Amino acid sequence: MQYFSISEIKGWDRFYRTNFINSLQGYKPVSLIGTINEKGQKNLAIFSNIVHIGADPALIGFINRPVEAAPHTISNIKITGHYTINHVHTSFIAAAHQTSAKYASDTDEFGTVGLTPSFKEGFLAPFVGESHIQYGLQLVEIVPISHNNTFLVIGNITHVFLNEGLVQKDGFIDAEKAGTVASLGIDGYYTTGLVDRYEYAKPGRAPRKLDRF
Amino acid sequence: MQYFSISEIKGWDRFYRTNFINSLQGYKPVSLIGTINEKGQKNLAIFSNIVHIGADPALIGFINRPVEAAPHTISNIKITGHYTINHVHTSFIAAAHQTSAKYASDTDEFGTVGLTPSFKEGFLAPFVGESHIQYGLQLVEIVPISHNNTFLVIGNITHVFLNEGLVQKDGFIDAEKAGTVASLGIDGYYTTGLVDRYEYAKPGRAPRKLDRF
Repeated sequence: MQYFSISEIKGWDRFYRTNFINSLQGYKPVSLIGTINEKGQKNLAIFSNIVHIGADPALIGFINRPVEAAPHTISNIKITGHYTINHVHTSFIAAAHQTSAKYASDTDEFGTVGLTPSFKEGFLAPFVGESHIQYGLQLVEIVPISHNNTFLVIGNITHVFLNEGLVQKDGFIDAEKAGTVASLGIDGYYTTGLVDRYEYAKPGRAPRKLDRF
Repeated sequence: MQYFSISEIKGWDRFYRTNFINSLQGYKPVSLIGTINEKGQKNLAIFSNIVHIGADPALIGFINRPVEAAPHTISNIKITGHYTINHVHTSFIAAAHQTSAKYASDTDEFGTVGLTPSFKEGFLAPFVGESHIQYGLQLVEIVPISHNNTFLVIGNITHVFLNEGLVQKDGFIDAEKAGTVASLGIDGYYTTGLVDRYEYAKPGRAPRKLDRF
């Protein structure tokens, strides 16, 4: 195998190192986060550093980069307490990726990249109309990560909107059927193909494929 | 679209709700985390709630469930400060999934599920020999998440081991070539297919596919 020590990696060109470290973790749940500020200015940005924290309460976290580098999403969330997370599908990868450009604070990325803001009753932040899997969150806590000035933004899932026909009989959501993509590194987008689902594992029993969904 | 409020979701059967909430986030970077305790007892467990925190310093986080539910990994990391994260490939999905069974603390999951512990000089925790993308981490901080008694375990990447031929000329690691799988929900495993990589996005310029890698 090839071996790379952190001291060697630290000496690399910044762009090369960014690609390497960002793809080391493997596939990521890339999504668009929609927010709005007190003036009604909408913001839409692509995030892949999203992590499931728990199912009950239903908590999701995402990493917001340092505020100087990525101010709009976190500042809007602090103002309204509401944000939306929307899956990216093969049909609009280019538009989703384009939201990563450093637009001015008064730019509405929805209009600029050509995606449709969708407002739902009782929820302040805009969803992405093109997305087949959308969920709305209420801010729970922003945890500062002192080691690199990032933030773990934790939210409670409060609203879920899914296209018809995506929920299987045991509650599993068929993201492949929805055309959801996975990401790798900072710029790679992938389709997926199911290998198998497995039964709940128990000691002393061989792994079994789940074939009843 | 179908709408589900959190109050409706809370009323569902626990297993149905777990499948639903765990798959809502989309694809996850499923990997095996290898640890060891002060007696030399090895532990191997599958995790999918892994999140990139930053490239320089190279920080990765993962969510450890409440200590009562998942004690071994976090306790070993506290003891040695070292742990390994190893990609799961199509060739050993069943063995990787089987590590999620609730084994007794004196069970060595490597031997039990049939994966090979691989020790590297100067690093305490075992890597997974079958994995083509392996990295070693030094514990930086364990952040308690009070809302559900989980923990964000933050580590610094210190060692990276990759099969030959996986790093592209701009530093991107070709996880698809390595046979790395993505996961969905608590039990679904997927292969991937590259759609495209995109250039760094800039305001006022249409998104461009990257074709020079």
